Amino acid sequence: MQLELQLADESDDETKGARRPGTQRPGGRTARTRAAVRDAVLAGLTEHGYPGLTVEYVAEHSGVHKTTLYRRWGDVEGLVADALDLAGEDSWAPPDTGSLEGDLRALAREVVESFTDPAVAASGSALIAAGFQSQRAAEALRAYYTERFRRCGTVVERAIARGELPPPADTGSQAAAPAATMDSGALVRAVTAPLFLRLFITREPVDEALADQSAAAALAAARAGVFSTGGTAPGGPS
Amino acid sequence: MQLELQLADESDDETKGARRPGTQRPGGRTARTRAAVRDAVLAGLTEHGYPGLTVEYVAEHSGVHKTTLYRRWGDVEGLVADALDLAGEDSWAPPDTGSLEGDLRALAREVVESFTDPAVAASGSALIAAGFQSQRAAEALRAYYTERFRRCGTVVERAIARGELPPPADTGSQAAAPAATMDSGALVRAVTAPLFLRLFITREPVDEALADQSAAAALAAARAGVFSTGGTAPGGPS
Repeated sequence: MQLELQLADESDDETKGARRPGTQRPGGRTARTRAAVRDAVLAGLTEHGYPGLTVEYVAEHSGVHKTTLYRRWGDVEGLVADALDLAGEDSWAPPDTGSLEGDLRALAREVVESFTDPAVAASGSALIAAGFQSQRAAEALRAYYTERFRRCGTVVERAIARGELPPPADTGSQAAAPAATMDSGALVRAVTAPLFLRLFITREPVDEALADQSAAAALAAARAGVFSTGGTAPGGPS
Repeated sequence: MQLELQLADESDDETKGARRPGTQRPGGRTARTRAAVRDAVLAGLTEHGYPGLTVEYVAEHSGVHKTTLYRRWGDVEGLVADALDLAGEDSWAPPDTGSLEGDLRALAREVVESFTDPAVAASGSALIAAGFQSQRAAEALRAYYTERFRRCGTVVERAIARGELPPPADTGSQAAAPAATMDSGALVRAVTAPLFLRLFITREPVDEALADQSAAAALAAARAGVFSTGGTAPGGPS
């Protein structure tokens, strides 16, 4: 599972985890059912998009009875929201390349790789599309990405520990822990934002060079103090 | 008309333009029909979203006969694509505040203001949503934003003329026109990308402070040379 809704491998982990002998995994059968339903939801989204997804499709492709689906998930909105919730329960961690620049580049490249891989892109794109039509999907997307970007905070913490990011200046709190005064969420969002903009708003192509440029831009902004608490634009003519 | 699909005022301009006595406006009636159809498309998108938009709705709300709609626009996809094409034919120009920082802030704030205004946000959001379900809408979105961001190039040209952006270094082409070596498209996309990300992907709130931060981040990256041709990340530990 990655930042960009690459969901394909998750059911394998889930299923293997539930079946591994000697593993204490409460609700193994429930977890398997949930993963099977999630797989069917993603298959349906890939095939028909959110507006064409039906409970009937999910029942047919998951082997779970329609009555059970309605009882446990309510409706298509509930099914899509739970697919996102389940996606957020994985063990994904941001890249750890040894440098802030490397980590940010790797993050950006993950987005490009996922959404230029047709097998992965379709369901991820359909989940993002669902946010336009379903309030519950929108809330699940927010929760998913909030958690994803929260995990990316370690990238910034490691960079500060390595001395790659300066402590914020002129805030009168230089003695405080630097990590608390860097808006790491804004930084990691800035890394991926130009890619998501082109993929889903302006519908322009993305590639590795653009990923690297996005990472470099966010890094330059971070070094200039833009994401520091109380930070402003760097000095110069304005 | 603005960067962020604020379409509401466009029909007024269109209609007034067509009706003004003495104006040589070929196809005034056609232009009025087109604008009326576009208004009905936007009303339908606002009310029902793209999946719920029908030719019947557009006929009823535009006063244009269904047969005419099918003949001239083909189907719902064609109607939505033409609404976007028409939106791109306006006279919108980027802000001119006298400084690069001011212009970038104003650009970013326009996005926040439009998409936090419920009357404007609904149709703009529905047009972006249409790009997920219609290839023709996706192409029209790409054309729309390509033209919007192209116009923003003047912001960068003015900044270079004012000496607010440095000429690119170490490219061996310092004698060339600086404007040709700055990727102004990447810069202006970087300004708005963090806002579009939160509005339509991660579904997080946006506000003026975030607009200013996005503008400051893009500006810092531009000053560091990230958007210059051949530009890389600024020096420092990596």
